[in-house]
Amino acid sequence: MIIKTPTSHTFVTGSSEGYTPLNAFDGALLAAGIGNTNLVKMSSIVPPGTREVPITELVLPPGALVPVAYAAMESDIPGSMICAAVAAAWPTDPAKPGLIMEYHAHGHREDAESVVRRMAEEGMRKRGWEVKTLKSMAIDHRVEKIGAAFAAVVLWDL
Amino acid sequence: MIIKTPTSHTFVTGSSEGYTPLNAFDGALLAAGIGNTNLVKMSSIVPPGTREVPITELVLPPGALVPVAYAAMESDIPGSMICAAVAAAWPTDPAKPGLIMEYHAHGHREDAESVVRRMAEEGMRKRGWEVKTLKSMAIDHRVEKIGAAFAAVVLWDL
Amino acid sequence: MIIKTPTSHTFVTGSSEGYTPLNAFDGALLAAGIGNTNLVKMSSIVPPGTREVPITELVLPPGALVPVAYAAMESDIPGSMICAAVAAAWPTDPAKPGLIMEYHAHGHREDAESVVRRMAEEGMRKRGWEVKTLKSMAIDHRVEKIGAAFAAVVLWDL
Repeated sequence: MIIKTPTSHTFVTGSSEGYTPLNAFDGALLAAGIGNTNLVKMSSIVPPGTREVPITELVLPPGALVPVAYAAMESDIPGSMICAAVAAAWPTDPAKPGLIMEYHAHGHREDAESVVRRMAEEGMRKRGWEVKTLKSMAIDHRVEKIGAAFAAVVLWDL
Repeated sequence: MIIKTPTSHTFVTGSSEGYTPLNAFDGALLAAGIGNTNLVKMSSIVPPGTREVPITELVLPPGALVPVAYAAMESDIPGSMICAAVAAAWPTDPAKPGLIMEYHAHGHREDAESVVRRMAEEGMRKRGWEVKTLKSMAIDHRVEKIGAAFAAVVLWDL
Repeated sequence: MIIKTPTSHTFVTGSSEGYTPLNAFDGALLAAGIGNTNLVKMSSIVPPGTREVPITELVLPPGALVPVAYAAMESDIPGSMICAAVAAAWPTDPAKPGLIMEYHAHGHREDAESVVRRMAEEGMRKRGWEVKTLKSMAIDHRVEKIGAAFAAVVLWDL
């Protein structure tokens, strides 16, 4: 094993305006409650048997390296609507892992959430696994000057 | 040391159609035998002295965080050909690491493989190292609706 | 904890020409002194209390997995000027982490450095934190055929 396999997962979303697109992204991470950590982007599996932890219980040390699967959308078009969504699907067999899908676009959160849920269902179908649980979270943001929307599944060891 | 340095490496390729480009990418990972893990993308060195392990021997725990160097190409143009390739070059001095290069494009696997091998050779020349071994793997995929091609060197500790 | 939190940080820059954009990027990493490691890109916090280590003291094992926040710019337009810059801002409260910002563009290093410093200041303002220290590093590169410029904050455990 190179890196410890996570034992908990948390859904978060956030959005923000910012001085630059990266500042808006940083602000969205802060709004999501994970802005003072080092996100390491990964593709996109929930290990079997993780416990879901609400973001309020997730105490991440500042500067910790945190594995996340995320969707992010940035725009500098004032008035435009941007959205980001994540979904995770778990199979009936508890020995099998969950599958995370991410989606970002222009548009409204309902649309993004609908797409990303379907993506997770399709991923389970590809594996030949029946879906037992499907959870999703989405956010949208009306851009004032420069904005970002962010949705993630955070993996951690609690 | 922050993260354990890997001790083995494995070449894999896969391709797939999918409901969205991300689903096609996910399907390509499944075809490559690493679809139920969390890929952490990295740039692109094989530590000295790793053992090559065939994918059939590589048992990755579901949801494990797995460091990989990879090339991926997605397309939604029906009929188009897409390809992905990786190469690793090792120097004559066994104390020195190997260098991985990645390449993706429209086109055929032979072309991608030829390019990526040359890239690895050029990287060794840049270091002033003589090439002892050069290994590569490539794949192409004829897109039906939405497709992905994927080639990777997986690092692990076995 | 999934991955050990780093205890030291180092600012580096490098630039290079290369056979392809990825080879130029690889050459820039070599010029920066971290070309024989596996960079794992992360967003972008310096843990509290890290020690600054000069690159000359930073001995990274070949092939080690190294967390970095970085900016990179590549171009194949002969004669064009490209630049990359990073800045880190630390708050007056030593229990709080530092914030890293990255910026790349066409143009000169002075301009990139000015932008990225302002980005870090804005990120601190977003957090409601007063800036105690602000450090930055930038590089530019005149492209001959295919070039890359790279600036990073490397985190490590020394």
